[in-house]
Amino acid sequence: MSTFKLIATDKSARLCRLITGHGEIDTPCFMPVGTQGTVKAMTPYELEAIGARIVLYNAYHLYLRPGHELIRDAGGLHAFTGWPRPILTDSGGYQVMSLAELRQVDPEGVTFRSHIDGSLHRFTPERVMEIEIALGSDLIMTFDECVIYPADHADAARACRLTADWARRARKAFDSIPDPWSYRQLLFGISQGSVYRDLRRENSREIAEIGFDGLAIGGLSVGEPRELTWQALSDTLEVFPPEQPRYLMGMGYPDEIVAAVGYGVDMFDCVLPTRLGRNGTFFTRTGRFTITNARFTRDENPLDPACDCDACRRFSRAYIRHLHMAGEILGIRLTTLHNLRFYLYLVESIRGAIEAGNYDIWSKGFLERFRMGEG
Amino acid sequence: MSTFKLIATDKSARLCRLITGHGEIDTPCFMPVGTQGTVKAMTPYELEAIGARIVLYNAYHLYLRPGHELIRDAGGLHAFTGWPRPILTDSGGYQVMSLAELRQVDPEGVTFRSHIDGSLHRFTPERVMEIEIALGSDLIMTFDECVIYPADHADAARACRLTADWARRARKAFDSIPDPWSYRQLLFGISQGSVYRDLRRENSREIAEIGFDGLAIGGLSVGEPRELTWQALSDTLEVFPPEQPRYLMGMGYPDEIVAAVGYGVDMFDCVLPTRLGRNGTFFTRTGRFTITNARFTRDENPLDPACDCDACRRFSRAYIRHLHMAGEILGIRLTTLHNLRFYLYLVESIRGAIEAGNYDIWSKGFLERFRMGEG
Repeated sequence: MSTFKLIATDKSARLCRLITGHGEIDTPCFMPVGTQGTVKAMTPYELEAIGARIVLYNAYHLYLRPGHELIRDAGGLHAFTGWPRPILTDSGGYQVMSLAELRQVDPEGVTFRSHIDGSLHRFTPERVMEIEIALGSDLIMTFDECVIYPADHADAARACRLTADWARRARKAFDSIPDPWSYRQLLFGISQGSVYRDLRRENSREIAEIGFDGLAIGGLSVGEPRELTWQALSDTLEVFPPEQPRYLMGMGYPDEIVAAVGYGVDMFDCVLPTRLGRNGTFFTRTGRFTITNARFTRDENPLDPACDCDACRRFSRAYIRHLHMAGEILGIRLTTLHNLRFYLYLVESIRGAIEAGNYDIWSKGFLERFRMGEG
Repeated sequence: MSTFKLIATDKSARLCRLITGHGEIDTPCFMPVGTQGTVKAMTPYELEAIGARIVLYNAYHLYLRPGHELIRDAGGLHAFTGWPRPILTDSGGYQVMSLAELRQVDPEGVTFRSHIDGSLHRFTPERVMEIEIALGSDLIMTFDECVIYPADHADAARACRLTADWARRARKAFDSIPDPWSYRQLLFGISQGSVYRDLRRENSREIAEIGFDGLAIGGLSVGEPRELTWQALSDTLEVFPPEQPRYLMGMGYPDEIVAAVGYGVDMFDCVLPTRLGRNGTFFTRTGRFTITNARFTRDENPLDPACDCDACRRFSRAYIRHLHMAGEILGIRLTTLHNLRFYLYLVESIRGAIEAGNYDIWSKGFLERFRMGEG
């Protein structure tokens, strides 16, 4: 049975449906990031109430703490975290690169020290499959070699070779590990290539040829200029087969998501709505604002008058500003809740526009309004 | 119209009903503490869902930030915070004593520096009435002079004289300030006296004679040995007229609340359920525990199997422990929510036992179970 259905297209933008062991996900979709097994400051039922259909957890973090075996024994991530809908786990390739200490890469895998307690660990493509399968995620990412930006061509090429080799080994390991769960887990491959067009094309082709349930674009939005991001994305999507879901990892701002959908991306995750929310930055239909700004001191409007989230239905900017000024957790909760709702509203609107066949007009209108704000 | 009705008694324990401009409160009641205009980490609707009927906010904090005039202009504390039920504001006597810098007391009032920015401020009994009336609270506390523990008899006596004088001035100011709200605000007096029996009796009589809508016992649970607390409480309640609500300020642990109800206390507030919750301490029917203890690493039970709160209905000790170990806000939320529910369940059970006329038996059973835990 196919787990991915194309419903409608509007030029390169696609409306699709991804079928998982814990329900269907309409795409383009946004996945709130729950690094340590919780979308920061949110409960699972709050996420359900604002329309989240899938969340992302990090295998690297959960392997280190509390441990994938503990989570497996508790019935997997759905039972452990109380999130009943689909779960995607990132493999840790990016986290090992960005967080771990003393990282040593060899052809077989990576040896690194935990960022929590300095303990020594080793990830191989096979080991990461064991971990993610044990976690019980619905969508499993292969373990890739992510290079920092900037990287020279030789380093990026070496990372591509490892990433392709590890993807083949992950596929093999995934297929041979006994399935401990009653539902099907899907495996996604990740392509790399930094900002080099030849590497992006070649690596994307190699990864796609292995045969996965979905394909991801990794190593973007890591500091490179945006025109290079779009070039790499475009080069990749030309190679990826259209009948598979395409996931742009770790990106981005609302206007970037609108643009990426126009290139043909189906799935997004990003820490921005939660991370910025904790700092008091909030999104509205007219742009990005900072709640601690003095202009909001006596503002009795909701964060976004057009929003239907509890933060907007029940509280004023003046109150939420006071909470942030006073360092209160409720302030963090409310801006986080609203920002996530804004991202989910965004992808809902995107899907509606693709279905209506007017994505160009819709996105032009959205971007015009969105760029009215402070930016 | 009387705002306080005695429904049933069981020896000295009382079941009563307090009628306010935002609804009725059955007593004995527990008031979650929302110092800065939010019960830490909770939304108003979560508090409603676990059965809170009244919350306490601090005039001292809200005067300093965001300012009582801003809150008045926003429609008062109910509109500003989104809490629709009764609100009690503490006057700041205790906060000026414990938090403010450079505190200078004179017969007219107190000059102090803000603990937030060092700015200079002055509280008089009249000024504090203006502030609390502007905040729109349903139950307003007079501005008292709280002495630290230990205090010698002369210092405590001086504080009693000021407290009584200020209570008379507060009463007069309260009655002369034009009422800006559509509902009636009630005024509660506070008695002091440290641990001196003569002072407690004399000050309680003086305060009671002024004529308030309710009477509070201040200056207890500030470091004194518990036997002196009970002596001072007992001396005070002998003097307070039984037809008025009696509020024991800032206390205490569950077993202390059970004991104080036995002396005839009607109202309680305490930061313990929220403050301890943030540190991972939780209460159950069998005592007090710390979630980060290794024994809970793989414990799939809820915090308290007998509890009906969302933290207990949806999450395991193992997951909540993980959240606390990882420093996640959701961990703080869940232990806070549960602890508040536990305190509200406690006063619900207390009311049921008084109504049934078996408070002695109930409290003996409760305390036996409660002391099974770690303590």
